[in-house]
Amino acid sequence: MNAKNHDKRLHERQFVRTFFTSPTAVEGEEDSAKMIRSASGLRGMQAPDVWVPDNEDATAPSMRDEGAANIVEVVSENGDEFPGEIHPRVVWHRDSPETRHQGLKRMLSIADPEKGAVENLDGFVIPEVGGIDDWKKADEFITIVEHEHGLEEGSLAMSVIVESGAAELAMGDLREEMGKPTNNLERLFMLVDGEVDYTKDMRAITPTGNLPAWPELRHNTSRGASAAGLISVDGPYDDIRDVEGYRERMTANQAKGMLGIWSLTPGQVVEANRSGLPPESGRWLLDDGSQQVALESDGDTEVYTGDRLSLSEDGDGYTLTVGSDERNLDEDELSEELLDMVEYVPSMDDIVDSMEQFEEARDAGTGAIAMERAATIEIDDISVDVSNDRMWDEATYQASMTPVSLFQDVYEHRPDQHDELEELYSPNVVERATNVGN
Amino acid sequence: MNAKNHDKRLHERQFVRTFFTSPTAVEGEEDSAKMIRSASGLRGMQAPDVWVPDNEDATAPSMRDEGAANIVEVVSENGDEFPGEIHPRVVWHRDSPETRHQGLKRMLSIADPEKGAVENLDGFVIPEVGGIDDWKKADEFITIVEHEHGLEEGSLAMSVIVESGAAELAMGDLREEMGKPTNNLERLFMLVDGEVDYTKDMRAITPTGNLPAWPELRHNTSRGASAAGLISVDGPYDDIRDVEGYRERMTANQAKGMLGIWSLTPGQVVEANRSGLPPESGRWLLDDGSQQVALESDGDTEVYTGDRLSLSEDGDGYTLTVGSDERNLDEDELSEELLDMVEYVPSMDDIVDSMEQFEEARDAGTGAIAMERAATIEIDDISVDVSNDRMWDEATYQASMTPVSLFQDVYEHRPDQHDELEELYSPNVVERATNVGN
Amino acid sequence: MNAKNHDKRLHERQFVRTFFTSPTAVEGEEDSAKMIRSASGLRGMQAPDVWVPDNEDATAPSMRDEGAANIVEVVSENGDEFPGEIHPRVVWHRDSPETRHQGLKRMLSIADPEKGAVENLDGFVIPEVGGIDDWKKADEFITIVEHEHGLEEGSLAMSVIVESGAAELAMGDLREEMGKPTNNLERLFMLVDGEVDYTKDMRAITPTGNLPAWPELRHNTSRGASAAGLISVDGPYDDIRDVEGYRERMTANQAKGMLGIWSLTPGQVVEANRSGLPPESGRWLLDDGSQQVALESDGDTEVYTGDRLSLSEDGDGYTLTVGSDERNLDEDELSEELLDMVEYVPSMDDIVDSMEQFEEARDAGTGAIAMERAATIEIDDISVDVSNDRMWDEATYQASMTPVSLFQDVYEHRPDQHDELEELYSPNVVERATNVGN
Repeated sequence: MNAKNHDKRLHERQFVRTFFTSPTAVEGEEDSAKMIRSASGLRGMQAPDVWVPDNEDATAPSMRDEGAANIVEVVSENGDEFPGEIHPRVVWHRDSPETRHQGLKRMLSIADPEKGAVENLDGFVIPEVGGIDDWKKADEFITIVEHEHGLEEGSLAMSVIVESGAAELAMGDLREEMGKPTNNLERLFMLVDGEVDYTKDMRAITPTGNLPAWPELRHNTSRGASAAGLISVDGPYDDIRDVEGYRERMTANQAKGMLGIWSLTPGQVVEANRSGLPPESGRWLLDDGSQQVALESDGDTEVYTGDRLSLSEDGDGYTLTVGSDERNLDEDELSEELLDMVEYVPSMDDIVDSMEQFEEARDAGTGAIAMERAATIEIDDISVDVSNDRMWDEATYQASMTPVSLFQDVYEHRPDQHDELEELYSPNVVERATNVGN
Repeated sequence: MNAKNHDKRLHERQFVRTFFTSPTAVEGEEDSAKMIRSASGLRGMQAPDVWVPDNEDATAPSMRDEGAANIVEVVSENGDEFPGEIHPRVVWHRDSPETRHQGLKRMLSIADPEKGAVENLDGFVIPEVGGIDDWKKADEFITIVEHEHGLEEGSLAMSVIVESGAAELAMGDLREEMGKPTNNLERLFMLVDGEVDYTKDMRAITPTGNLPAWPELRHNTSRGASAAGLISVDGPYDDIRDVEGYRERMTANQAKGMLGIWSLTPGQVVEANRSGLPPESGRWLLDDGSQQVALESDGDTEVYTGDRLSLSEDGDGYTLTVGSDERNLDEDELSEELLDMVEYVPSMDDIVDSMEQFEEARDAGTGAIAMERAATIEIDDISVDVSNDRMWDEATYQASMTPVSLFQDVYEHRPDQHDELEELYSPNVVERATNVGN
Repeated sequence: MNAKNHDKRLHERQFVRTFFTSPTAVEGEEDSAKMIRSASGLRGMQAPDVWVPDNEDATAPSMRDEGAANIVEVVSENGDEFPGEIHPRVVWHRDSPETRHQGLKRMLSIADPEKGAVENLDGFVIPEVGGIDDWKKADEFITIVEHEHGLEEGSLAMSVIVESGAAELAMGDLREEMGKPTNNLERLFMLVDGEVDYTKDMRAITPTGNLPAWPELRHNTSRGASAAGLISVDGPYDDIRDVEGYRERMTANQAKGMLGIWSLTPGQVVEANRSGLPPESGRWLLDDGSQQVALESDGDTEVYTGDRLSLSEDGDGYTLTVGSDERNLDEDELSEELLDMVEYVPSMDDIVDSMEQFEEARDAGTGAIAMERAATIEIDDISVDVSNDRMWDEATYQASMTPVSLFQDVYEHRPDQHDELEELYSPNVVERATNVGN
């Protein structure tokens, strides 16, 4: 029955924060499986939700047979203990029957039950797909692998790398195609953007050679995932040193509903495992007319430390200067003015708190309640109290649920992260966040 | 024959500026219909183009049977006099057959001719639709309502709230589906974005809990409306105090071809009824390098009052300073430079004037004419004359027609707004605007 | 077999930089064909990749029969020598059977082999198309023209102007439709945006009457071209004086994969023929926090000449001031900080150089190499060395290939531009750019 409702996600994980790739065979090392052996030992925040032994681009073509054997060896040894899901990437190309046949043979080999890896395998990642008929070819091959090896039909998930205009368009057809009796596309799990090859396929040029941001592609991937009950994941962020840039990209992705991202290093995995979860403490932001700056908490007071705003008091009232714009205001006007400039970023505790309050009111028969948010803001040693009410109704409550659902999915499926989550949020907040909304 | 041309809009109104929702039954009031009774009395600029007695989210689930009865009572009493169209919203959900059945029963009840409301009803609003097959289910139910009650097939319009990725995709299929003999989807009227539930469906997260701007959704809704001859309407703007923000959102929407917007209060209705119409007087904008500022008209002179630009004259010529960038210019260069910085926002009078000039030239056999726009700009007490020509051809003329067509549609269908429009524009401008282009 | 692979472009030209329109008949001139006669004489950088004698909007309706005759006359006389392709635009409209019939008759007449123009004609441009079925009608008419005149089926290319929401949606269907036995849509060549009429069709309004930027339309056109093996071209840029604005638009388009643009004058043709090609010399950009500014090369040093940054040295280290933000840094930190602020725009020579280096490494069995980019940056007379490594793998190499492929396509098909290209880049760079990657 589930299969009839593509808005529901069909797989065990409802969310994937991190998609971590490792080369399956490295030339010139004593142990060519070194990288995946090491990756298979990751635990806690360093371990991704989805680990991808990458037998495509990250592994040299000449090393891919050895890479396939390495996957089998490492996954059968260590896969049982690995805390995330395991989805190897095999070769595929919409324009090359040879490559597709290679992909079939590698999947047959990796999933062979006699070799012992398949029980720890969750699915395969198929790169370079084209239109929907090309997706069906990959699905058919996985069906053949399942039959050949006596596995249940649909038990191996299929995820794709969206790295062509044709694949971007295909995401609009999934919902219609997934129910058809001639395929097992219900096995689809993740839609993963691959911006480097997409840029090549779209023939885009930038002066510096940097990748375009492709906002429409990311929207369409997120929408395709939403319409077909799948999970959307953004592509790699190459500049590994640039942690701030990686965080900004994830914040932008989250506003599109794309909650997962590729990670190239365990350091990026830590960042990405944390990024979608609400912060441990709330903070106030102030828009100074040119940018949003964070206020510094000093006890109950939020202190502005920038130099674009200044505030002074005289007998009659206040003078607030923003850049070169000076305004004379009385106390109420000043409070109102500042209220328009500030915003609050709620903590996990705050979110759970608001949800609990709403649940209580709803159970008592009230459909909407006002949530107050107040602060004392200090500018140039002058304190101003601001306060606003936000109406919460069922829709607000439901929309607030997304980061909490993400947390609950993580908490359920990643016991190896329990300690770190409790250290981050406190055991009490973790417990309440686990229970709210259920 | 009209049905063969989906680029033509099939309903009486070609434009909808305002979509105003009211709760149909409020608990704890002596008269539970108080809100819709009051809304039904709105007239003039406070009255929306489309009024939506909302028997879904705005009405508590336990009050919805009473709400349906209230709709019947108020619409049969006051609907005849109401100046806009009336489209109640009933319950619906792509994932719930129970809710859909509820929706059918409520529509059957509200549209029962014996109860007297249906003659004042223009259609129904269906929320939470999914893929195109789900839209067809709603259409089929309305067909059944029409047959059951002896109404002409297609006489009740259907509008939908687009609040899922699946519904966003469905808008791409409308044009193909609307002609089929097995449905009456030609009854479709408005495509209305619902960003709160859409955000939930897309699983988007923002740090502050604010809604993402969803530019791609709004584009796709406007495009879907364009391709299928429908009308696109943006969702609610929650921060009712923030009039400036509401206006900015409407300006952004209009640049996407989305000329309608949800209104939550009569105050928002007034703003939104005015927003798409050209202003009563034109004005000059100057881009100072960091933002566009309005010049202040002082007789025939447009005065710059900001502090980013300064201008001085010496024996040889002029020194224009923009921020920290200083340029020495002769009189012609100065005029040229300022011309690049300014733009004119034409008034209704200006637009009609240009269109009349073009029509006259065209009737005389000229395909393109130059429209001159000149001004004297004053910076630091120095006056500079600027002037430019813009070529008008048939395409410019046609594109200028959109705000005038909007005005004409309003003028034809909203006699209750004639006084306010004549007061705003003067009777002479109103008369010319009514006649131009016909 | 090619027809089975829509990712491959089927026409001779893989790239079109410039789409130049000329009125086919001008009233009141002694020679009504004056404009196209003059355009047919363009050579070198002034000559477009595609020349469009425009028998639609640029020619008055009353002059179009004469315009069709002029096309025949000028193309049969001068077409042989013309260095670009020739694709006349004829009338068409999705809503008007009369206009479509007119389009058929004009194509029949222009392509009549007895008149001698058809051997120099590469195809036709069809404006105002609607949904995919409307595209098929145009395709069918061209098939009839081919049969009527004994031309090979598919020998005349078809390009469309995308200027309606319906046509925008149709671009998503091309890939599926192009293979069908009932049409010859494989003849499709260019997808050209027409923003003026699109704005009208979408009913968009802007305060100043300027055109919206329509980023989603341009993305969807580029994607449609990518998925169906076609070429995407942006619409006209009306403000002919504004060279800077035209360049910015092209840079933005290129980042979307839209490498062609409409040109209204030979001056715009020169700009657009140059824009997608890498520059003759590289340059460093520095992001000063408010904008990117170009550094000035002085020998081996790149000098910052703006006033937002200042740098001073004291006994302990350095003080870098950016706007009002002051940072004390040691030498390494300073170098790191500046490295984050600068970016390099590589020249054609640089790109070819990197590609050659990568090819050499690859041939020696190395899959990825570090490319170093170093500079000495001077701020307030203090010099700082910065250097970074970028990893190049096969994907980086492939993505870098796009501007080089564009160059190679130009070099192969436009011998009339060889002199100018060799003067621009030097014969040595031209030769290496011609050979790299093959």
